[in-house]
Order: sequence, then structure tokens, then C-alpha cells
Amino acid sequence: MAYQQRKLDIALDSARKLARMRAGTNLANLLQKLRPADIASILTSFTEQERLFAFNLLLKQNEDLVTETLGEMPPEDAAGLLAHLDPPTIAELLQKLPVDEATELASKLPEDLVEQVMSLMNVAQSADVYDQLQFEEDTAGRIMNPNVFALREDMTVSEAIATLQRKSHEFEMVFYLYVVDDRHHLVGVVSLRQLLLNPPSMPLKKIMTTDVISVPTSADQEEVARVVAKYDLVAVPVVDEENRLVGIITVDDVIDVLRDEATEDIYSLAGVDTEERLTNPALKSLRLRLPWLHVNLVTAILASTVVAIFSGTIDKVVALAVLMPIVAGMGGNAAIQTLTVTVRGLALGELTWANSKRIIFKEVLVGLGNGVVLGVVTGVIAWLWFNKPMLGVVMGLAMIINMFVAALTGTLIPLVLKRLKADPAVASGILVTTFTDVCGFFSFLGLATLFLRWLM
Amino acid sequence: MAYQQRKLDIALDSARKLARMRAGTNLANLLQKLRPADIASILTSFTEQERLFAFNLLLKQNEDLVTETLGEMPPEDAAGLLAHLDPPTIAELLQKLPVDEATELASKLPEDLVEQVMSLMNVAQSADVYDQLQFEEDTAGRIMNPNVFALREDMTVSEAIATLQRKSHEFEMVFYLYVVDDRHHLVGVVSLRQLLLNPPSMPLKKIMTTDVISVPTSADQEEVARVVAKYDLVAVPVVDEENRLVGIITVDDVIDVLRDEATEDIYSLAGVDTEERLTNPALKSLRLRLPWLHVNLVTAILASTVVAIFSGTIDKVVALAVLMPIVAGMGGNAAIQTLTVTVRGLALGELTWANSKRIIFKEVLVGLGNGVVLGVVTGVIAWLWFNKPMLGVVMGLAMIINMFVAALTGTLIPLVLKRLKADPAVASGILVTTFTDVCGFFSFLGLATLFLRWLM
Repeated sequence: MAYQQRKLDIALDSARKLARMRAGTNLANLLQKLRPADIASILTSFTEQERLFAFNLLLKQNEDLVTETLGEMPPEDAAGLLAHLDPPTIAELLQKLPVDEATELASKLPEDLVEQVMSLMNVAQSADVYDQLQFEEDTAGRIMNPNVFALREDMTVSEAIATLQRKSHEFEMVFYLYVVDDRHHLVGVVSLRQLLLNPPSMPLKKIMTTDVISVPTSADQEEVARVVAKYDLVAVPVVDEENRLVGIITVDDVIDVLRDEATEDIYSLAGVDTEERLTNPALKSLRLRLPWLHVNLVTAILASTVVAIFSGTIDKVVALAVLMPIVAGMGGNAAIQTLTVTVRGLALGELTWANSKRIIFKEVLVGLGNGVVLGVVTGVIAWLWFNKPMLGVVMGLAMIINMFVAALTGTLIPLVLKRLKADPAVASGILVTTFTDVCGFFSFLGLATLFLRWLM
Repeated sequence: MAYQQRKLDIALDSARKLARMRAGTNLANLLQKLRPADIASILTSFTEQERLFAFNLLLKQNEDLVTETLGEMPPEDAAGLLAHLDPPTIAELLQKLPVDEATELASKLPEDLVEQVMSLMNVAQSADVYDQLQFEEDTAGRIMNPNVFALREDMTVSEAIATLQRKSHEFEMVFYLYVVDDRHHLVGVVSLRQLLLNPPSMPLKKIMTTDVISVPTSADQEEVARVVAKYDLVAVPVVDEENRLVGIITVDDVIDVLRDEATEDIYSLAGVDTEERLTNPALKSLRLRLPWLHVNLVTAILASTVVAIFSGTIDKVVALAVLMPIVAGMGGNAAIQTLTVTVRGLALGELTWANSKRIIFKEVLVGLGNGVVLGVVTGVIAWLWFNKPMLGVVMGLAMIINMFVAALTGTLIPLVLKRLKADPAVASGILVTTFTDVCGFFSFLGLATLFLRWLM
């Protein structure tokens, strides 16, 4: 049966109506027929109240389904639901999840609650979660699954198959079989296919690939995602400083990382908080957006004071007030273009500090090119509109200056932020447009003041 | 050996120096030691001339490595290199690539060249490429690999293993084994693991999962990516209208789709052409950016004419020229926030036309909230700065109006574009900021004209 979005849309629609009517039995029946990932996406699109209602309903009827659904939800939403339960129930649910997912949820719960919950979990699982919480957030160690299936290099193919038959149910997604030596150092990898294709007595040592791509526990999750994407892997093993195999990161987690990082970049460029979600209540969105808008306000006022400095000139030539938003606005647009290309290049690993000089040089050239073309066009427009040739000259020169500033700041600011180990997308947009606003007004009105006698 | 970005950075640096010095032998030696994905990323970061130089070098020494490298490069770059070769060589290289990759490259070559090349390829492969070119771009049919490994439902486990041993080398990445009936309808799926865990005489029919998630050939690639991401798959089978298995899409292709779509969204929001690449020569970037900047110019002039209408008012109260960029700019910033959240929600499938009413309502509420808070803040600032209470009132009211407009257009414009089957990210940014610029200037200067006698 081909996947059908329409069927799911209809289910979502019905589910929402049932939730709004608090029709518990019908809603539970509907949800139980769906896959955990579908239930998760329905719950995510609910309001907080509806979500909690449906969640408690499912919890009473089918705890396993609830566990799987929690694993498929955005961790913030899942933790938000858990926080409403009593500690013993939370402990029970976390115990059923894979260690990496339990850890992620635990990290999003209030600290005192986590302590209570962990003391109620069985010792083995809580120790695993505790160990994993020691790794820094957003690193390979934190997002890996420490339960990784490994074979010893002295095994034969038939011994490997026997081990796999005995133990594979304990592990999620077994696609590659990692091979370790007697001190658990990662020494090779064998595919399930190779096990099938080789004679039973063949030692793994002879068929394994020794050139295994692995990542250290300290690797940033973005780096891990880049490695998996670049080499077309479906999983990557995680090793400690001594190359001992300590975990595995599968491609489904990598996809989540890639999506989250893309969302983060898009949001950062637009000045949207990464906590922002479509289904947040209005008050929460307001609280998340206002700080950023106030930062914007400060920079807008900064630009306005530049205008204020030259209000004497504007008073004499009101055409300047008409034209000045064009200079500032066009600079901002050009700067955002450059900035976006630079930020995306950094995110995809195509741009590094090493090859940045060439890129900066190129962008400045593009900026000057933009400036000359747009300077001539806007200069002619200004001249014809107000029938003052000198106004055209001022406009054209200001445009060239501002396009140069746009190109320079659009590349330099994200590069410098990255060099300072800050997120190159955060605040780049506002810094860059502040520069182009201030420089746009200053160059245009400043030149106008210099050439004032030919403008009146 | 853990993956080391540093080692690759050093290799990249050396490679670039060798390419610049045209040190052919050394460069070829260096590249041949690397993985195809690494060679691909080095070539991608080269200038066009260096890239062609290194490519021709490798082609002479190791044709297989060149083929694999082509498969790992962005298709535009790979096609750009191929276009420099003579048709027989292109045909030879395309024949060695998997059908989906050969098709993608063929689709990027000039049309007359494709015809020549295809007539030189062996009949079977060129027929496959021709068939696949019949599917629309960016659909499942176009990006799938038509060589999919399938087992018959009446086989036993041991027969399945025998078939796999005989044939699996013909297929890339075998992780799931799809099961078909005698007319090639997709009826189930079996994992390699299940084959290992079940007795040899067990019929596949008994162990296969019949609830297979598949996608139709007509599915948009974004939809395919969403399905793979949502259900944590490593591959998804593609079926025709009659549910016959016709291809497979693997997770590595899905990752490419997700990255490309994210890049596209980020670029569209910023008004950057999707053909834009960091390593493009300056002249090409200029050619790609200027059209968009000219569109921006038209809207900037539109906003300026609004200012021009009220130039009489500005002439009397120059403070208006100082304050007006704040109203327009803040509206633009708020609109971009709303727009970004909406566009990303649409891209991730969290927002649909069905649940859009609630979101629009919420965003308008947030907009009015933003308007009231910022209206009061900016109103007080305007009053104190110019010591005119009425200027504060005008500022506050204009801010509320513009924030409302920002929220409404920021959600409605991408939703309507999506409904009209256009890309919701393209042109959204410019439409939205044109609205906020025009409305910002109009409401602020219009109210000022109404209350002019209290402002002088």
C-alpha cells in the first residue's frame, strides 16, 4: 500500500475533532490503528491541552505504543508530556526507551524531577543514562546509542551468525557489524551481506573492511551528520580516545540532526528563537519574539540617529527623505544575499577559514559590480524623478559605497563569528543590516550635505 | 581510525596548491589515496579551471575512481566537467554509473549532447536512462534506482539466501528485501536479519511484513524524504499506479534531497538563486543576484513613492523622516519572523491548509501583542526624543497597524503560494516586506498628516 498523506490528513482531522469534543474512546480507537510516527505527528499538531488529553488516554490503554510514540516526537514536546506524570510512571516509560532516547528526554526534564525519576529506574538503565549525560550536549557521545552490536575479530562467519541470532533482538537497526579486538578496539566492519556471501568457516578477520569510518565521542553532532551524509552511511560507530567502540549513531538520528540544524540556521537568520514551534500558544511565541524585536529596535534607532544628524539637510531637500530608504534597503537586501550564501556554505562545510580569502575577495567584487549597476540605474532614476543631476550622482555614489559595505560585512561577520566558535547564523542578519542601514543613510545624506548647494 | 576533518583540510590545502602550480603527477598521487567523496569535495571547492585540470588528470589514470567521484559531486558540477569531454568518453562514464545517477547527470547536459551520448551507450543502459527521463523532475520516479532487488513470495528462506548470494552484487545497498507476487506487485518486505534468524525451509510469505510503506513514482521528492525521515527507514520502495515494484530510493539520496530542499528554502527566503554556489566565479554570481536586486528596487521605489506622496508633511515636520524607517523596518523584521516559522512549518509538513486557520489566528494575536508592546515603547521614545506627545501617539498607532499587517501577510502569503502549488519560500520575503514598507510608511505618514496641526 503506497504511503498516503491524504489518509493521514483525514485521520488528523478526525483526531482533532474528537480531541476537541473530548471523545476519549473514539480517539483512542483511532490512534491505536496508526503507526507511532503518525500518532506522534498528530500529537505534535495538537494544542497542549488536547495533547495531554490524548496522551493520558493512550497511556491507560497501551503503554508500549506510548513509549514508541514518545521516541518519535520532538524531545521538547515529549518531555513536556512526561513532566505531567508522576515519577514512577516516568521511570517506567524511560526504562522502555533506548538509552539515547531516554537520555535525551531526561535532559529536557526539570533537574529535581530527573533525580527522582532516575532513582526509581533500574540500576543498569539509570547508570547508562547517567553515563551518557556526562557527554556534552550535541556531541556524538550524547546522541549515540551505547548498545552497539560487536563481533570479535577471531570469530568465524558461522560463529558470527550464531551470535547475531542469539543477540540481535537487543539492538536497534543492525546493518553493519562492527568487529573489535580483545580490548574492544574497533578494528573492522562486516556487512550482513558479507556474512551471507562467505563460507561458514571463514574468519571475520579475512573478510572485514579495516578502513572503518568512525567518529570520536567528542565530535559535534553537525560534524557526525556531515560524515554520514558525505560517505553515504546508514550508521557510524562512535569510539573513545583510545579507539574503543562505545556506541553507534544511526542515519535516522542523523536526519533529525540535519533537519534541526537547518531549522536552526533558517530561524537564526530571521531572528526566530529555536524554541519557537508553530503550535506554541500565542503568549509563548510573543515572549520568544519580543526580545529579538527589541534588539532590532535598538539598531533601528541607531540608524535613525544618523538620519537625525542630517535633518538640517533633509529640511532643505525633502527629496532626500524619499530616496534614502532605497539606499539603505537595497544594501540590506544585497547583504542578506551574501550572508545567506556564506552561512549555508559554512553549515555544509564547503566554506572554511582556509578557503575564505578567495570567497571574501569574490564577494567584494560582486558587491562592487552590484553597486556600479544599481548605482547607475538608481542614479538615473533619482535624476529624472526630481530633475536634479547632482541628486543622481549622490544616489549612485552612495549605492556603490553601501553595496561594498554589504558584501564585506555579509561575508566577514559570519566568518568571524564562526572563528570565535559562535553560531555564524545567530545575530549575523541584524549586525549586517545595521551596518547597511547606518552606512546607507550616512553615505547618502553625508554626500548630499557635501554637495548641498547643487541640490537646492 | 576516527574520521579526521583536519587531515582532509590539509589534503585539500595541498591539493589546491598543487593544482595552482599545475603539478600533475603529485596531484594525481595525492587524490588517488583519498575516498571518492573526499575527491569530490576537493574538486567542488576548486575553481573551474583547477577542477577541469584535476579531472582530466584522474581520468587518464583511474577511470573507475573518476566514475565514483562523479557520483559524489553535486550533479551540476559533475555535468559541467562531463560537458568538456568527447561524447564516447561521456557515454563510457555514464554506463558505469547507477541508472539514477546517470539519468541525473544526463538531465543536466545540453540536449544535443545527451542525444549523441545516448546513441553511443549500450542499448540496455540507455533505454533505462531514457525511461527514467520520462518521469518528471524531482519526483520519486526520477530519483529512484530502477534496479531493485526483489524476491518472489513463494520462495523459502534458503532459496532467498541463494538468490541473494547469486545476484546481490548487481544492486547497491541491500538492507530490506522486497517481496513481490507473480505479477511483480509489491506484497511484503523481509530484512536480512530475518533471513538469518529463520529456518531455511520457512516460506517468505510467513515471515514477511505485509504492511510495507512505499511511494508512488509521481510522489514529490520532498514527500519521499518526509516519509523516510518520519518512519526512520533506510530505503523506500517505489511502485507504479498498479502497485508494481519499479524502483528503490535509499536514505543517502533522501539526505541529499533534505539538504538541497533546506538550502533552497534558505536561499529563497533571502532572494538567492538556487544555482548560486560559493565557488561560482564573481561574474556568474553577479548575473544571478542582479535580477533579484532589481525586483527589490522596484518595490523599494514603490515604498518611496508613498513617502513622496507625503513629502509636504515631511517638509513641515522633519522628525517624521527620522522616525519613519523605524516603523517600516520593525514591521519588516516581525514579518520575516512570522514568514520563516510558516515556511519552515510547511516544509517540515507540520503546517497544512487544514490546520492553517488556527495558526493564522495565533499569529495575528502575536502580531497585535508585538504591536501593542512595541507601539508603547516606540511611542514613548518618539515623544521624549522630539518632545511632542502627539508624535508618540502617531508612532504607536502606526506600529500596531504595521505589526498586524506583518503577521497577516507573513502567514497568508506563503500559505496562499503553497495552495497555488508555488514554492512558498520563493518571493515570500520580498512580497511581505513590500507590504510592511508600504503600510509602514503609509500608516505613519498618513496619521501624521491627519494630526499635522498638533505636530508642528
